[in-house]
Amino acid sequence: MLISFEGIDGCGKSTQARLLAQRLETAGYRTLLVREPGGTELSERIRGLLLDPALDIDPFAELLLFSAARRQLVVERIRPALQAGYIVLCDRFYDSTTAYQGGGRGVVELAWLRDFNRRVTDGLVPDRTYWLDVPLEVALARRDQAGDPDRMERADPAFFERVRATYAQLATEEPDRILRLDATASIETLHETIWNDVQRLLPPTGTRPPGVGSSTDRSG
Amino acid sequence: MLISFEGIDGCGKSTQARLLAQRLETAGYRTLLVREPGGTELSERIRGLLLDPALDIDPFAELLLFSAARRQLVVERIRPALQAGYIVLCDRFYDSTTAYQGGGRGVVELAWLRDFNRRVTDGLVPDRTYWLDVPLEVALARRDQAGDPDRMERADPAFFERVRATYAQLATEEPDRILRLDATASIETLHETIWNDVQRLLPPTGTRPPGVGSSTDRSG
Repeated sequence: MLISFEGIDGCGKSTQARLLAQRLETAGYRTLLVREPGGTELSERIRGLLLDPALDIDPFAELLLFSAARRQLVVERIRPALQAGYIVLCDRFYDSTTAYQGGGRGVVELAWLRDFNRRVTDGLVPDRTYWLDVPLEVALARRDQAGDPDRMERADPAFFERVRATYAQLATEEPDRILRLDATASIETLHETIWNDVQRLLPPTGTRPPGVGSSTDRSG
Repeated sequence: MLISFEGIDGCGKSTQARLLAQRLETAGYRTLLVREPGGTELSERIRGLLLDPALDIDPFAELLLFSAARRQLVVERIRPALQAGYIVLCDRFYDSTTAYQGGGRGVVELAWLRDFNRRVTDGLVPDRTYWLDVPLEVALARRDQAGDPDRMERADPAFFERVRATYAQLATEEPDRILRLDATASIETLHETIWNDVQRLLPPTGTRPPGVGSSTDRSG
């Protein structure tokens, strides 16, 4: 089972991904939490390039770098974990590329990106995607408290509005996969909403993999 | 005018690119020589990842990284140089991706790669491509003299035979652009062959840009 968390920077998705991972582990599910871009040696080094405020990166080159990091993560960690029966939680997945590089930067047509993303992830589609939707001003206020913005976070407000609009479009196109959550709610309320939804998706108790060998990557 | 040099590692293309750049500058042409992957801050840092023998890189991630480096090089240096009237010489360009990742690694279909390469280079096509063709054993002998192989050079002989076969296929498909050269010839003979061919392609003397501001990137 593969679950992804999406939304603009400052929406609270990393917190929710971590809380869900802990709850799943406590419930006895082997869980792998990864963040994008990152999660492998190569992907973390690509992350270093992507977030470096000193680099002026062309938008299409940016799309290719995010996708290279994702590809390596899928092949090296996500696929093997799924095959071993883990529940995999992704703090961002390919919808981020569609929203940020497709919708936000307008690099390529979304139709081309759909096929491209499928190639990058080798056809892997999340069973559930939580889109944590917040108004831009709320996200900006949270990010102000978080310290210096990285290269991605320095984009202008209009950019993040386009990103948010693209997430809305994706949620409309794939209502069975993408669940929009009002991320102005409290951390606890959001977590309970997610937990209630996840429980309906989980495999029946009888098929639960043993609760040993939990592996949560909290490097992010 | 854009000229690229292609061939398997050890074919002598870097030497020929450098000799042609020098000859063009001596003849009064403003010339820019770039190598792939590299030529920009971002692209050189991507190069560091691609050639690192310690990294185990998925073949499709590899394709995306080479393409990201190329995209940045096109946008940041090649396009501006062409617009300023420079003759641009590329030590490898997108045919390398077709030959190495497409033909050699078999990552994706060549038809998809053709469209993808066009997007990456923003439609830029070399006016002339010199394919320096050598038997694999000659290339290997030259590389043995050059010291420790990088990550790309460590591939097995069958890989390089597939790369060479793909170059041959490309040369058949685009005979007006790609010129096959027997790269077992001496450095001087090859250079004269290339120089004679280039002279026919050069703009007439009257339209030559002034011979000032030459910029040859010899970092490679």
